[in-house]
Amino acid sequence: MNLSNQRVKDVGEQGLLKILKRYCPQEIVGDDAAVLSIREGRCLVVTTDVLVDGVHFSDRTTAPEDVGWRAVAANLSDLAAMGADALGITVGLALPGEVAVNWVERVYQGMNDCLQKYDSVIYGGDVCRSSVMTVSITALGEVMPERVIRRNMAQPGDAIVITGYHGCSRGGLELLLQPEKGAHLTPQGREGLIQAHQRPNPRLDVLAPLWEVSNGRVGGMDSSDGLADAIVQICEVSGVGAYLEYDKIPIAPQLKLLGSFEEILDWVLYGGEDFELVLSLPYESAEALVKRLGEGAAIIGEIISSKTIELLDSQGVYPKRVLSLSAGFQHF
Amino acid sequence: MNLSNQRVKDVGEQGLLKILKRYCPQEIVGDDAAVLSIREGRCLVVTTDVLVDGVHFSDRTTAPEDVGWRAVAANLSDLAAMGADALGITVGLALPGEVAVNWVERVYQGMNDCLQKYDSVIYGGDVCRSSVMTVSITALGEVMPERVIRRNMAQPGDAIVITGYHGCSRGGLELLLQPEKGAHLTPQGREGLIQAHQRPNPRLDVLAPLWEVSNGRVGGMDSSDGLADAIVQICEVSGVGAYLEYDKIPIAPQLKLLGSFEEILDWVLYGGEDFELVLSLPYESAEALVKRLGEGAAIIGEIISSKTIELLDSQGVYPKRVLSLSAGFQHF
Repeated sequence: MNLSNQRVKDVGEQGLLKILKRYCPQEIVGDDAAVLSIREGRCLVVTTDVLVDGVHFSDRTTAPEDVGWRAVAANLSDLAAMGADALGITVGLALPGEVAVNWVERVYQGMNDCLQKYDSVIYGGDVCRSSVMTVSITALGEVMPERVIRRNMAQPGDAIVITGYHGCSRGGLELLLQPEKGAHLTPQGREGLIQAHQRPNPRLDVLAPLWEVSNGRVGGMDSSDGLADAIVQICEVSGVGAYLEYDKIPIAPQLKLLGSFEEILDWVLYGGEDFELVLSLPYESAEALVKRLGEGAAIIGEIISSKTIELLDSQGVYPKRVLSLSAGFQHF
Repeated sequence: MNLSNQRVKDVGEQGLLKILKRYCPQEIVGDDAAVLSIREGRCLVVTTDVLVDGVHFSDRTTAPEDVGWRAVAANLSDLAAMGADALGITVGLALPGEVAVNWVERVYQGMNDCLQKYDSVIYGGDVCRSSVMTVSITALGEVMPERVIRRNMAQPGDAIVITGYHGCSRGGLELLLQPEKGAHLTPQGREGLIQAHQRPNPRLDVLAPLWEVSNGRVGGMDSSDGLADAIVQICEVSGVGAYLEYDKIPIAPQLKLLGSFEEILDWVLYGGEDFELVLSLPYESAEALVKRLGEGAAIIGEIISSKTIELLDSQGVYPKRVLSLSAGFQHF
């Protein structure tokens, strides 16, 4: 095949990112955000996300406040994934002239609602005309150099920690698309899942307890593209593997009522947009962290030197599964 | 009229920006970029630009390397306009799956060509699917707090300095659209104008000589949206006016050959995308700066307390013109 004739859709998002990384300094790419030294004892962390109407949100099914909240949450989650506290964001907005000014204001209101929760602000941005609404956010954060969390820092013997439930955002989406599926849920259970989808919380709150229980190496990233994706990415760049255990992955009680075990497990592993952190750290710190975080947080497995990534059942009820990145190859 | 029914096209780019500024901290919006204190003696400067295929560039008439160069140049120009040196950029790319990977790589190559000239790099970014190609760039820079250049710092009695010729980018575009118009030009003259359009140079190089000749207040911005636009914006936010003189505005010799005086003057005032700086500072520093910068740089007028902005002819040949922002109300 002639490489020069390749289209973006032939190489996919991951393939294109790999090619474009050649144009960036090698020491600062490959994580959720770039880390820049700005002064003795402090690094600046910067991350960019682009959201497109009809791909990442729809102004027909999502309230504008929620579009804004989720866009900000995704970016702040990338900062949390690097161990960084949020400073602020810039917003680049491309939109058709037909869009109501009020719609745009409500998006900004949702952005500010999320930012205020984390003592953060909008620094400014740009607006321009386009036939497709596109929201591009760049978030800035700050971290001490010894507290940067990187994907490539997992080591065999590490515990794999998740900071909360997975699959709830996907469950909330299901309830929005097919409300009748929630017939068995309490109103609070239903609302909880819908909130998980519409108003996800980036886990910047995890950083303080994390550094209270750990003073050493912590690897990891966020689970915005799914729990399985995060584990596969961490293992790939760290040159390691992992095993997970079925019965150690916590599943939110209300989520279990939404479908078969197989269906729910698929949402938990591949649903995405839960914006939890997936961390790799020594067992002692991991256990102390999970205790601090409470419900939904858990040690779900261990990093191993063999490069396989498997989901096992010590009870022998469920079949062994091998996790892979294939589900992530879908953005084009 | 019911405000809640307003569309984006009803309020225009400036109107929408004014509304959205309400959602940002008041002390950091209103300039080419936001300025953040990060440490004793240093401020971080951050700016975002969104470019849309068919609005800001066309992959049918512009080489991909030039799309990349110009996108970076526009952002670095915003940094220069704040007095800041460039650190690096992030790139958010939304594009159709049908786009050739090679096209994207050539855009990145053009970005890096421009960045390298200013010791700057791509920090990373995001790619995603969209039906419309959109390039969103966020640039980071650094400046000492006492050297921040702001739009609202013009004072009556200041000289108004431009750092180079205006209208050349517009002239280059004309030559690309109607090559026959360049029949009277030398090959170098033609190439110079086309380069001004395809490979504009952000004036980061002006900052060192500027601070060699000035140790006080400097106001201003860049002329990316046109020379007239820059002067009107500076006057509006500084609460002042200005007079300019026809025969003090330098016009590039090769540009004069492209049309009538009226047509060329229109390009000089409203053409845009020359990415020069328009500065407001005391006469003594202004004169020393112009001498350092050489050809194309000039003192073109003076800031006055009366809030009118007029273009005058001391020879009495050309009629008085009043400058206004109306030509800028076109982005939606």
